[in-house]
Amino acid sequence: MLIERIERVLQASLQEAVHPETPPRLGQALVHAVMPGGARIRPQLAMAVSLACGDDDPALSEGYAAALELMHCASLVHDDLPCFDNAALRRGRPSVHQQFGERLAVLAGDALIVMAFRAVIRSKARQPHRLAEVLGFLESAVGPSMGIVAGQAWECEPRAQIQVYQRLKTGALFSAATMGGAACAGRDPRAWQVLGEALGEAYQVADDIRDVLMDAQQLGKPGQQDAALDRPSAARELGLEGAVVYFDELIGRAIEGIPVCRGAVRLRNLVLREAQRLLPFHDRPIGMAATDLPLTVS
Amino acid sequence: MLIERIERVLQASLQEAVHPETPPRLGQALVHAVMPGGARIRPQLAMAVSLACGDDDPALSEGYAAALELMHCASLVHDDLPCFDNAALRRGRPSVHQQFGERLAVLAGDALIVMAFRAVIRSKARQPHRLAEVLGFLESAVGPSMGIVAGQAWECEPRAQIQVYQRLKTGALFSAATMGGAACAGRDPRAWQVLGEALGEAYQVADDIRDVLMDAQQLGKPGQQDAALDRPSAARELGLEGAVVYFDELIGRAIEGIPVCRGAVRLRNLVLREAQRLLPFHDRPIGMAATDLPLTVS
Repeated sequence: MLIERIERVLQASLQEAVHPETPPRLGQALVHAVMPGGARIRPQLAMAVSLACGDDDPALSEGYAAALELMHCASLVHDDLPCFDNAALRRGRPSVHQQFGERLAVLAGDALIVMAFRAVIRSKARQPHRLAEVLGFLESAVGPSMGIVAGQAWECEPRAQIQVYQRLKTGALFSAATMGGAACAGRDPRAWQVLGEALGEAYQVADDIRDVLMDAQQLGKPGQQDAALDRPSAARELGLEGAVVYFDELIGRAIEGIPVCRGAVRLRNLVLREAQRLLPFHDRPIGMAATDLPLTVS
Repeated sequence: MLIERIERVLQASLQEAVHPETPPRLGQALVHAVMPGGARIRPQLAMAVSLACGDDDPALSEGYAAALELMHCASLVHDDLPCFDNAALRRGRPSVHQQFGERLAVLAGDALIVMAFRAVIRSKARQPHRLAEVLGFLESAVGPSMGIVAGQAWECEPRAQIQVYQRLKTGALFSAATMGGAACAGRDPRAWQVLGEALGEAYQVADDIRDVLMDAQQLGKPGQQDAALDRPSAARELGLEGAVVYFDELIGRAIEGIPVCRGAVRLRNLVLREAQRLLPFHDRPIGMAATDLPLTVS
């Protein structure tokens, strides 16, 4: 199963980082930030694309998948800080700063960024010439002009375009998942851009909808935060119904964006399963029901 | 001149990161964090070692030198945060959080870590097989078990050994400068370990001494912070005189640690010039006077 391979490489990354010489509380904060995880959708997506592309360098694609998840965890830890969302809850448990204090939350986020690069750098890739390309997708997806950091920084500007904000804050890592996943297997990444972009935007739209509809217990983190923090949100911009219609459009676009390949069915299943998981209370249009398809992603 | 090459690559890194699509205030915070700089000792050391080793891949050694300085700047921005040192001053100007707020200081630090990796990844190294080794020195020097993050995290533990703390907090990046500088030129890094370790520790000891002796105007940052924040400090542990003796010992060890090579005189000058700059009020023992030697580092 994909998810088990992913948990295994994440576990290995943590074991390398957290050993007897690591400051103990930092080590605990790192484990807390990564385990137990959420849906691990970014690494699943990257590995599903690598597999669809032949996956001829599994050490590289596994390291890259772990790196995406570690970057995602880093962004959650820093986003939850008192100066940003000041969120006491994450995945139904205390956030890192709530449990370990603000200083260790800053440091854990920094460490997770470094560990993400390390997961690729030390992956023992069979194809060392692919390393720079794959690392390029990683750094660009989190960097200050086109990545997560840029997305988060738009929250600190007096004015931000919602599409730009969402593309950077969530979409960048999804595009990096599909395009970088292809690059790990030596394939042309451009064919995989649409899938990543559409799914990333859908994910952010779903997050906006869930923020309005669900309470803290269902979300595992505080709800109604977009309005409270005056953040850009599709649900606030398009209305709840409009946002749901837009979400379905994006899921459709993602599925159409899957290139013809032997892994296409697996990828379609993954997208539909995610759509169902993200908005479970919403009936998919006919032909998009996840239950029509086998659910296992091996 | 070395320093001019370094300023040029740092400028190029900033220009790549700060363009019309970058959130404007984040862009300003990044420029503020990097320019104008301090002594740029880490990148100077790395490039001096690369040159001493033949520097057959200047794009890689320049990118690596820039990366070390960007990592150093990242650590300063995060160390100055209210939850750590809460320093309003840095290099004689407002610190990043003082000028741009805490949120942009967290993000600028994150961005600088990513930009550091980018500087190496995108360096168009002629020798791509060296990339993983050089990146390995970089990530290890900042990571959670043996790098800057670990050093800073020891401040959050109830008990820390001062040598471990200093080796990690400052020494790690100095060792990475000398060893990684050699790796950029395809040479065995191990011969360069002693120089980096000794100079790094000397640098931290000098910092501890200066913290006691100098005021905020001379330092360009708040003084007497180690006592105020109850931080491990050589001056507190060994007494002021003992710390100065230990500093001289470390400078001697650094100089003896320079391997026999055609760049040895340049490196010796660099070390002595730094010793003089770090503790200007202190007479070096005979035979260690920086003024005996030509001062230019070309």
